[in-house]
Amino acid sequence: MEIKSELDKRISEIEKILEKYLPREEGYQKTIFEAMNYSVRAGGKRLRPMLMQETYRLFGGNSKAIEPFMAAIEMIHTYSLVHDDLPAMDNDLYRRGKKTTHAVYGEAMGILAGDALLNFAYETAAASFLLEPQNPNIGKAFLVLTKKAGVYGMVGGQTVDVESEGEKVDAGKLYFIYRLKTSALLESAMVVGAVLAGADENQQRVIESVAGLVGLAFQIQDDILDETSTLEVLGKPIGSDKKNNKSTYVSLFGLEASQKEVAKLTLKAMEELQGLSLKNEFLGELLLYLIHREK
Amino acid sequence: MEIKSELDKRISEIEKILEKYLPREEGYQKTIFEAMNYSVRAGGKRLRPMLMQETYRLFGGNSKAIEPFMAAIEMIHTYSLVHDDLPAMDNDLYRRGKKTTHAVYGEAMGILAGDALLNFAYETAAASFLLEPQNPNIGKAFLVLTKKAGVYGMVGGQTVDVESEGEKVDAGKLYFIYRLKTSALLESAMVVGAVLAGADENQQRVIESVAGLVGLAFQIQDDILDETSTLEVLGKPIGSDKKNNKSTYVSLFGLEASQKEVAKLTLKAMEELQGLSLKNEFLGELLLYLIHREK
Repeated sequence: MEIKSELDKRISEIEKILEKYLPREEGYQKTIFEAMNYSVRAGGKRLRPMLMQETYRLFGGNSKAIEPFMAAIEMIHTYSLVHDDLPAMDNDLYRRGKKTTHAVYGEAMGILAGDALLNFAYETAAASFLLEPQNPNIGKAFLVLTKKAGVYGMVGGQTVDVESEGEKVDAGKLYFIYRLKTSALLESAMVVGAVLAGADENQQRVIESVAGLVGLAFQIQDDILDETSTLEVLGKPIGSDKKNNKSTYVSLFGLEASQKEVAKLTLKAMEELQGLSLKNEFLGELLLYLIHREK
Repeated sequence: MEIKSELDKRISEIEKILEKYLPREEGYQKTIFEAMNYSVRAGGKRLRPMLMQETYRLFGGNSKAIEPFMAAIEMIHTYSLVHDDLPAMDNDLYRRGKKTTHAVYGEAMGILAGDALLNFAYETAAASFLLEPQNPNIGKAFLVLTKKAGVYGMVGGQTVDVESEGEKVDAGKLYFIYRLKTSALLESAMVVGAVLAGADENQQRVIESVAGLVGLAFQIQDDILDETSTLEVLGKPIGSDKKNNKSTYVSLFGLEASQKEVAKLTLKAMEELQGLSLKNEFLGELLLYLIHREK
């Protein structure tokens, strides 16, 4: 399978689904609708909705009931980027070569657009209750989605990350940050896909573990690329972690140990996934691609 | 009924319920937990959970199933204040005589604490799915809660309000702002209470209308007090709307017409509420108190 061209095809399919759930840019609130849509349309690999959909397929899910949740998780991911880029946070004016939301719409609108996207994510997913009021999996999926995005998940990781800036963190805290800041939303994506497809509790636990391992490997690979890649390949300045005195897996354990850890985590994730004895060739390739990507 | 002493009693009951749902201040994310709890504990009249609970009682609801939703709506209200107070928004260092969240914890933590509270609101309400997985009203209540807080509700109103600063707005836009910024969350409170108690769709519509009218009257009374009260009574500087060149009902229609409008809206709300032929004496008194308050 040509992963790269297959990936592009799926990204464009997912972006068609996302478009269906974006608000129409009309009425008195036109500006905030534009800011929300600008943020979501700014691109990205759409990994989280893709992982959700592929995990749903892995467990035999084949309806459109998954779509509002796919849109929701991409909105959650997007809001977190919009707020991360704010002046009081990372103060970034560009992301993926495009102006960030607050750079275009101003800081107040950047805050409100992020708030609006987070809320709209849950509003979008909640519409599933109308479609299938008797389906108990929707409530369960909601629980996973909210918990992994919040203070015991992504937001919790962001806050510890912000607080630890310029300070040397130990391995325990580093794992905590990676698990919450990076893994939590990947776990959310895959577990929500599993729950909506009717996976049993044991299967859900396996999927959560696979996603957690992949998230860790993904983040350590990020640290490695920041050290070993080039501006040309990565498309953004390298060496920023070192410059910002940021504790990373590489700064704590060195490059070689980091590469070994990525390999170890990958092997473990693949073994656990195969232990389910279910088949989704693309999902396996996608996970490997995420971990071994060069940018 | 002595509304003031009854109100104080209920506020303290509601604050006991809120405490049950606040996160424990422990672990690596201790700071964000503290910031969230600081914001929620900063006080206020707890109107939204109170209106939710009283509407629930009006329709015969008498279980604890309402409690996570009461906590959720107060968290949503609180997050909106935390973000409103940020430097890029209203830039307020004090609220109700206490330092605002970002004034205590810094601007980055102010943004994240708001995000965390909004997300935690839905996480808290979602826990109801575990308690009553077969209750279809929970999904319906979720739909109301998310929609009224978002871009078609409160956040939508905030954005138009922010965009209209220093600009003369016409009556249509003013009503739009009041309806979304102020009424929407009161509608959410009362409709969620009705839905969870099993009110039928017609009853839900009446309650939504009552809450909308009360919200409008409440906001116009706010405008009137800003013009006619004193610093001593109100506990905050008066005349701020005029100073900020803010379009209000009073600036558009004058003081007398504003007072007449409050009376008209109140009468209509009370008539509609009585049309339900259900009895909750405290709810009626509470609504009148809200509208005719002097601070």
